[in-house]
Amino acid sequence: MTVVDSAAALRALARHGQWRGTTGGYCPGCQQANVVILPADAAMEFAAFCTRNPVPCPILEITPPGDPEPARAAPGADLRTDVPGYRVYRNGALAEKRGDIRDLWRDDLVAFLLGCSFTFEHALVEAGVPPRNVQMGTMVSMFRSGIECVPAGRFHGPMVVTLRPVAEDKVSLVRELSARYPHAHGAPIHVGDPAAIGIRDASRPDYGEPVPIREGEVPMFWGCGVTPQAVAVAAKVELMITHEPSQMFLTDLPREGT
Amino acid sequence: MTVVDSAAALRALARHGQWRGTTGGYCPGCQQANVVILPADAAMEFAAFCTRNPVPCPILEITPPGDPEPARAAPGADLRTDVPGYRVYRNGALAEKRGDIRDLWRDDLVAFLLGCSFTFEHALVEAGVPPRNVQMGTMVSMFRSGIECVPAGRFHGPMVVTLRPVAEDKVSLVRELSARYPHAHGAPIHVGDPAAIGIRDASRPDYGEPVPIREGEVPMFWGCGVTPQAVAVAAKVELMITHEPSQMFLTDLPREGT
Repeated sequence: MTVVDSAAALRALARHGQWRGTTGGYCPGCQQANVVILPADAAMEFAAFCTRNPVPCPILEITPPGDPEPARAAPGADLRTDVPGYRVYRNGALAEKRGDIRDLWRDDLVAFLLGCSFTFEHALVEAGVPPRNVQMGTMVSMFRSGIECVPAGRFHGPMVVTLRPVAEDKVSLVRELSARYPHAHGAPIHVGDPAAIGIRDASRPDYGEPVPIREGEVPMFWGCGVTPQAVAVAAKVELMITHEPSQMFLTDLPREGT
Repeated sequence: MTVVDSAAALRALARHGQWRGTTGGYCPGCQQANVVILPADAAMEFAAFCTRNPVPCPILEITPPGDPEPARAAPGADLRTDVPGYRVYRNGALAEKRGDIRDLWRDDLVAFLLGCSFTFEHALVEAGVPPRNVQMGTMVSMFRSGIECVPAGRFHGPMVVTLRPVAEDKVSLVRELSARYPHAHGAPIHVGDPAAIGIRDASRPDYGEPVPIREGEVPMFWGCGVTPQAVAVAAKVELMITHEPSQMFLTDLPREGT
């Protein structure tokens, strides 16, 4: 087995088609990023949307039109090849899945790197309070909440949130740890009652996999990086390219922020 | 004298042409913002530049093209009227100063609200370590440093930095206080030797007013919100509108961040 000990090493594997799985748990010292690529026209409104909704959409970097190098987050990397897997959406519908997007690249494409909760999950693991989705090796439960995002141009819709059940006596610790990562969704947006944020059945997620909430556990909810993608799909943008779910872009940015 | 006790009240005075002075020291509970308005074509590259240089250019909000309402930072406000004073640059040259920009507004204009050090200066005052520029009522000293920003498209150039001399035994406190405000330039980028960041003569600022460095004081330098303006002037963008120096846009965002 290849030892992946740096973000650059993982990006190189992805570039050569040798990495197709989840990036969760890898490179615990680095920030992981959601990727959304849009034509410049839509991208300007999307940038506005992200700044208006910084909890689900924390911007790590935007690239100028046509430039596939994230010069701050990972100098020398190439966003056309260095993500393990890509999804291509046309007019809001999933059109294909791919290992690279070199032949789809255009001079007007703008890439957004947005913070990801994999980043703070490392901190929870290290502090001895691993999220259940990490322990079980499942995808985190995600829900379309009743919280409306602040709209910007064509982009509007509900905030997507993640659910992690936490033992009652660990809630404060988990809240405090996650609050240290505003670039990775930060503190929970709600703790306690799923119905209070418009979630009818916490056992039936809209995305990801269900997670049991056991006796003595409290459901904690965080803003989720699926929000901007869901909003862009709903806006039926001509072309949108994203990472394959849970196969994130590994940046060189230190986990604690800059 | 009118008591200005809220950001909304100050914005209303500005809107009616009844406020033309500095906003420094007002509304200590709110974040103040640098304003940069650009046509969408340049704005997309400028957004990239800001994300690549988050210390001098912390993004508080971007508005979608044509929309003058900062829906997150100050819902209901109007960026065409609610800044005390504006500067209009054409092809990189100062063309005029104005009290409002209603008749210059276009469907393709994008406004950037960027963090401002007035925000953390309030915290220094409250902690009993007021910056000398606040005590003396002068403009802070600003320098083009030798630190190159990460370029994005047409935007590149040196980081502009502010200088505040601080008593040796207060340096740690001031560092720690400012670090709590990453949305307002955060921790100092350098402490001690002006020459180490390419500043030859700390008594001759490139912008603002000189400040004496007294016996037992250490020069502390922070990233400065003049950086993005200086870079946009150098890029000779067709049209750029900014706030008048030290007459910032008052947001409703709490000083400590969101």
